[in-house]
Amino acid sequence: MTGALTIAGLGPGDDALVTPEVSAALASATDILGYAPYVARVAPRDGLTLHPSDNRMELQRASDALRLASEGRNVVVVSSGDPGVFAMASAVFEALEASSEWRDLPIRVLPGITAMLAAAARIGAPLGHDFCAINLSDNLKPWSVIEKRLRLAAEADFAIALYNPRSVSRPDGFQRALETLRDAGAGERIVIFARAVTTPDEKIETVQLSEARAEMADMRTLVIIGNSATRRVGRWVYAPRQVR
Amino acid sequence: MTGALTIAGLGPGDDALVTPEVSAALASATDILGYAPYVARVAPRDGLTLHPSDNRMELQRASDALRLASEGRNVVVVSSGDPGVFAMASAVFEALEASSEWRDLPIRVLPGITAMLAAAARIGAPLGHDFCAINLSDNLKPWSVIEKRLRLAAEADFAIALYNPRSVSRPDGFQRALETLRDAGAGERIVIFARAVTTPDEKIETVQLSEARAEMADMRTLVIIGNSATRRVGRWVYAPRQVR
Repeated sequence: MTGALTIAGLGPGDDALVTPEVSAALASATDILGYAPYVARVAPRDGLTLHPSDNRMELQRASDALRLASEGRNVVVVSSGDPGVFAMASAVFEALEASSEWRDLPIRVLPGITAMLAAAARIGAPLGHDFCAINLSDNLKPWSVIEKRLRLAAEADFAIALYNPRSVSRPDGFQRALETLRDAGAGERIVIFARAVTTPDEKIETVQLSEARAEMADMRTLVIIGNSATRRVGRWVYAPRQVR
Repeated sequence: MTGALTIAGLGPGDDALVTPEVSAALASATDILGYAPYVARVAPRDGLTLHPSDNRMELQRASDALRLASEGRNVVVVSSGDPGVFAMASAVFEALEASSEWRDLPIRVLPGITAMLAAAARIGAPLGHDFCAINLSDNLKPWSVIEKRLRLAAEADFAIALYNPRSVSRPDGFQRALETLRDAGAGERIVIFARAVTTPDEKIETVQLSEARAEMADMRTLVIIGNSATRRVGRWVYAPRQVR
């Protein structure tokens, strides 16, 4: 048997948002690797070995997955959302680059509904005009880079999706990000706090950036900051298509 | 019967990338509206009326959909990709804002796999680090805004997804965009031309930005420009997670 590695996105949480392509990959897998809460979304069955691991184990997990595939297993690495957006796909290609022995393995990346798309859909269309996505975790990049990108994104008048805004180990960065955006003149923009979107814990809140507080976000929150033209209609928030 | 309006994303082309949520909405619809090639992706059946329309008819289509829903129909507006990314969702909320009579209609937005996620998955993980998405069509915004955003995106070192890079009615903008990015110092970055991703016409090409030519894109192409650290491993292109 020839092994293969698939890197698959499970979407934001609701099974109705898992693509048939991903469901088929899970159904034919022999081994599933990923951060434990994501692996827990896959039902156990005979012939399937689940390999849950801790957060921040991305590179080790990627190497383990490549090794298993090289041994003939049909391996799926699962990410929440889309595997190519601040998730496992980059880690797998880093591990692939680090060791030439796996270079010829069949690899597939299967896209998923990333959190910002699910969050945007719930509240209307805040990403209907040009936008950017910034990972606020400074585990793998200096804060100065994050701050520079926030300033330039505000100047470009992008809507801004902020992934991983805040966690127990990074309690202060999001507050600094909010201050940076206020300094950059974005204080009147609409901010969307979308927590645990499409799960039973879903909670969505909108405030003006000047009134946003860091405590409104935690590690399950996706934050979207509208552009300067983003507006409300009834319970909805959307970015107009036209800019003058 | 109470009518309802659903704005649904069909993904990039392959039916295996249509979410079960969207498939269910299509199965229970009485009326489907959208740009003709997208409506053509929905199989005809008894009790279903298809309403294909031309491109650039977005606002009229949105009003028609809201009116049909107000008359008690179960209406689905379809977009390719994700309806909230340069697609129909913003147009529907604009139409909703323009006329208060439809303000209480039940509306849902159902996300889909947008082109940049599908394209990124095919080539590796070029959106694995911070990125932005810019619509190159200047039908609804002045070119000066596009150019400013390209310069700032290059300065921020975002990977850049370019939607609608080129069409018969806009043959020259993409060339100007490439020149702007070269001027901004991005000439050595990797560019991915992803045409008709996940369809039988799929074609993916990668070149250095300095060698990119406008003719490499048409209206079915999604262009991704890597950030300054984006690299190749074998046939793959990916953005490393770490920035120093």
